[in-house]
Amino acid sequence: MIVGKVVGNVVCTPKHPALIGIRLLLIRQYVSGQPKGLMVAGDPLQTAGAGEFVYLVDSSEAAASFRRGKVPVDLAVVGIIDRYNSTKCTLT
Amino acid sequence: MIVGKVVGNVVCTPKHPALIGIRLLLIRQYVSGQPKGLMVAGDPLQTAGAGEFVYLVDSSEAAASFRRGKVPVDLAVVGIIDRYNSTKCTLT
Amino acid sequence: MIVGKVVGNVVCTPKHPALIGIRLLLIRQYVSGQPKGLMVAGDPLQTAGAGEFVYLVDSSEAAASFRRGKVPVDLAVVGIIDRYNSTKCTLT
Amino acid sequence: MIVGKVVGNVVCTPKHPALIGIRLLLIRQYVSGQPKGLMVAGDPLQTAGAGEFVYLVDSSEAAASFRRGKVPVDLAVVGIIDRYNSTKCTLT
Amino acid sequence: MIVGKVVGNVVCTPKHPALIGIRLLLIRQYVSGQPKGLMVAGDPLQTAGAGEFVYLVDSSEAAASFRRGKVPVDLAVVGIIDRYNSTKCTLT
Repeated sequence: MIVGKVVGNVVCTPKHPALIGIRLLLIRQYVSGQPKGLMVAGDPLQTAGAGEFVYLVDSSEAAASFRRGKVPVDLAVVGIIDRYNSTKCTLT
Repeated sequence: MIVGKVVGNVVCTPKHPALIGIRLLLIRQYVSGQPKGLMVAGDPLQTAGAGEFVYLVDSSEAAASFRRGKVPVDLAVVGIIDRYNSTKCTLT
Repeated sequence: MIVGKVVGNVVCTPKHPALIGIRLLLIRQYVSGQPKGLMVAGDPLQTAGAGEFVYLVDSSEAAASFRRGKVPVDLAVVGIIDRYNSTKCTLT
Repeated sequence: MIVGKVVGNVVCTPKHPALIGIRLLLIRQYVSGQPKGLMVAGDPLQTAGAGEFVYLVDSSEAAASFRRGKVPVDLAVVGIIDRYNSTKCTLT
Repeated sequence: MIVGKVVGNVVCTPKHPALIGIRLLLIRQYVSGQPKGLMVAGDPLQTAGAGEFVYLVDSSEAAASFRRGKVPVDLAVVGIIDRYNSTKCTLT
């Protein structure tokens, strides 16, 4: 599961019919606390806001997280990280 | 979901029967606004043109996006990016 | 299958309904005995503790390891490594 | 979808029963026109020959391309590239 | 499909119930004839021995290769490489 920060959103008019109504977020991936590349992800929770750290699932688990048939999404926000407990490492 | 720019198309005569009628595009991947490697992707929308920025899904979500049984495609264009909103980063 | 060490856990309140009750661990990946990036993984065994070396499966095998429908998890702890036998390499 | 060049084949006697009769090719991957690492792929077309540029699908789309139940193959040749059209890049 | 060499095995007592009876091998991956990182893989053939070059499938094809329901394994040995034919490259 991938950790990232919400940094914006993406708008597209021509799109696959199964994507209508799916909110697309712009996510900055974080690896071991370091910012990395940008990714586009679907948002089945509909509550993630800019600046929040979230975790994401990929591939068929992302598509299934929308609970409405075959959605062509391979990355989805499934949780907003409140805190993490570790004395040895930095996640966000 | 991957972001890329349409840069051409690919033609092949001998191919898997399930690929007949599938349009294959040549895509330049963009990671955090930087051009990267070339990829070949299917085009279920049939509307993406050269120079457009698109986003793509991979693996079984790509195969399902064609809505016609088991298509041997693992990368598909599912949207054309109109714009994105972010004060902090460059996507395309 | 990925090898890692449990280094903490992750707490989130807003999350996908299918994640309720799923314990999320913070894992340091080990590649050929060297510590690498951090990952977040589900814990279907419910017994992995901090400092233990574990092995993990990804993608749909991770989701299926919870045995309760479609869980949006793409990485899961499925074993705790007791020992390994090899005269030529270091795993943990 | 991956682009590669057929450079040989692989022979194995002890193998999974579901692999019997599956032709295994040795493929040199090409990324943006540059030769990269070697890969082993199944050949459902049965027509790809040494020196030809092909494109390949991975994961479950590769397994499904053989059209005979659950084949333990995660990379398969599904087309032979005749030509590509692009004024800006080199694919093969 | 991944090429690797068997270099040992892994033993774990606490594990997912669906892993009971699954033999776990320690594999050194080979990329274009060069040794790379270590991996843990399941062994549905039950015949691979230390020092042998094998090829492996990943993800759901690995899980299906055991032919006993949902096995939480995402990498499996499905063939032992006898030889390969190529005048241009080194695989093992």
